[in-house]
Amino acid sequence: MKIFVTGCAGFIGSNLVDRLLYDGYEVVGYDNLSTGNMRFLELAVNNPRFTFVNGDLLDFERLSLYLRDIDFVYHLAANADVRFGPNNTRRDLEQNTIATYNVLEVMRLNNIKNIVFSSTGSVYGEAKIIPTPENCSFPVQTSLYGASKSACEGLLQAFSESFDFNVWIFRFVSILGERYTHGHIFDFYKSLKEDPSTLRILGNGKQRKSYLYIQDCIDAILLAILQPSAKVNIYNLGVDDYCEVNDSISWICKELRVEPKLSYAGGDRGWIGDNPFIYLDTKKIQSLGWSPKLTINDGVIKTVRYLQENEWLTNFR
Amino acid sequence: MKIFVTGCAGFIGSNLVDRLLYDGYEVVGYDNLSTGNMRFLELAVNNPRFTFVNGDLLDFERLSLYLRDIDFVYHLAANADVRFGPNNTRRDLEQNTIATYNVLEVMRLNNIKNIVFSSTGSVYGEAKIIPTPENCSFPVQTSLYGASKSACEGLLQAFSESFDFNVWIFRFVSILGERYTHGHIFDFYKSLKEDPSTLRILGNGKQRKSYLYIQDCIDAILLAILQPSAKVNIYNLGVDDYCEVNDSISWICKELRVEPKLSYAGGDRGWIGDNPFIYLDTKKIQSLGWSPKLTINDGVIKTVRYLQENEWLTNFR
Repeated sequence: MKIFVTGCAGFIGSNLVDRLLYDGYEVVGYDNLSTGNMRFLELAVNNPRFTFVNGDLLDFERLSLYLRDIDFVYHLAANADVRFGPNNTRRDLEQNTIATYNVLEVMRLNNIKNIVFSSTGSVYGEAKIIPTPENCSFPVQTSLYGASKSACEGLLQAFSESFDFNVWIFRFVSILGERYTHGHIFDFYKSLKEDPSTLRILGNGKQRKSYLYIQDCIDAILLAILQPSAKVNIYNLGVDDYCEVNDSISWICKELRVEPKLSYAGGDRGWIGDNPFIYLDTKKIQSLGWSPKLTINDGVIKTVRYLQENEWLTNFR
Repeated sequence: MKIFVTGCAGFIGSNLVDRLLYDGYEVVGYDNLSTGNMRFLELAVNNPRFTFVNGDLLDFERLSLYLRDIDFVYHLAANADVRFGPNNTRRDLEQNTIATYNVLEVMRLNNIKNIVFSSTGSVYGEAKIIPTPENCSFPVQTSLYGASKSACEGLLQAFSESFDFNVWIFRFVSILGERYTHGHIFDFYKSLKEDPSTLRILGNGKQRKSYLYIQDCIDAILLAILQPSAKVNIYNLGVDDYCEVNDSISWICKELRVEPKLSYAGGDRGWIGDNPFIYLDTKKIQSLGWSPKLTINDGVIKTVRYLQENEWLTNFR
């Protein structure tokens, strides 16, 4: 079994690569290193079953060279930051929608039929039903990021219907844990490291978010692909809980033993397209026998400790 | 009030242009004439309030030159044929998704905030609830065409949230009437003109479809834009009825006074991604005070008569 992982040098991708190698698979990893980091692949590159390709998904020719003789694709490469869409409206279109089209088209041309895709709870926009189930009403997109991920989902589904692909779509809450490199835990940690006396918070701190620990996320994916129930399988992934941004700040500060003065930008959204309440209904994935091992609080603490042990990460970015 | 119409030389676009000019507006029409036809603009080009631009929406520079100093955009240009997606998977991505992104991005750069978009009932995939309301459950796409239109909707919605655009999205059933140039009424007519003795039908003829007459469609759009209820306004457009493909065949044959031998390809779908039952819930648009003047049968007859009076069209395509 030969597996192709896009975004293999990223947070989720590199953790998945390590797990797949540990489980005995042959893995080809593809990454343009725009946000990924080879240090995350230190373990993998010493494994003879791993091949790293430095390539961009927008380079159709290069992708076509390496995405062949593959049994299964994990497509994790993406612009993963929901916040910066309005500053560069083309980025989500290119790095998410068009990149995903390229992956699917090369798969089709090379007769590869199985794909896992990392989608997001952001595809629900501002859902009216919370916790939000997979079959909630037709959403209205509220961010370029969510819109692009939703477009990717549509492409996967259409390729499944047209070309008999087996598709797994996972809509993630924010993922935390080892190699976490962006999002507000990262930003808060970095800010407090630089100046423990104050912390500036986008929005009013009352935004409610849900998080999932990276190893729990990978467990869920690997379990779900063993149990396809249709050609297109869609699962929310998250813990059955949420916290306020203020909660995560208090956990971080307690762990770091700092007491900053908090300064709020105000408003119920941290940025344009920010969703003030993300909490996904995860009954569907739980019905397969999965449940997360770590709470949100556990995940935040583990992430802070990882960042403390890997100072290069906060210096680097 | 200066209006920009993409796809101005197409079936719906040219009818809309004529109506807007009749209503006294200044209109700039943009079309690459890949499927549009200048004969549809014979009336318009003689009107001093009309400017025609031969341009492609994928040509960002050219679009930027002409899509400026505009109050309102009707974005109708598209690859409009759901059937041929699997033969050229890139077409819907480019002509629908990327083209729509270009329109939105040029609007943003030129500070234009109002847009009407022609979407489709195909975005519902194979809906579980029929007639299908706008807020049905999160659909699974079943065609590259539907996926691309759904991606366009997401882009419009995200631009609305991020940049304060006013957006109207109309999800059409098949539109019929003057200047109709593709779809199965056209194909049946053309085939019967060439050989009235036999007619080959994709699928089993029992596919159930809904249709709307072009002038009823335009009435609905022009009414809805006067009554925005939010930044993003989404409406199904169709008649409150459907027919079998076999019904439309019998109406066409009766009108043409032919009795062909019918030969069915078989199966409940005419092609990959064909939806065996499209029937939209149109209560929302009807609540604004609109109702269609023509039945499906009326629309089919009117279309057949138009095709008979415009032989050049079936010879041309």
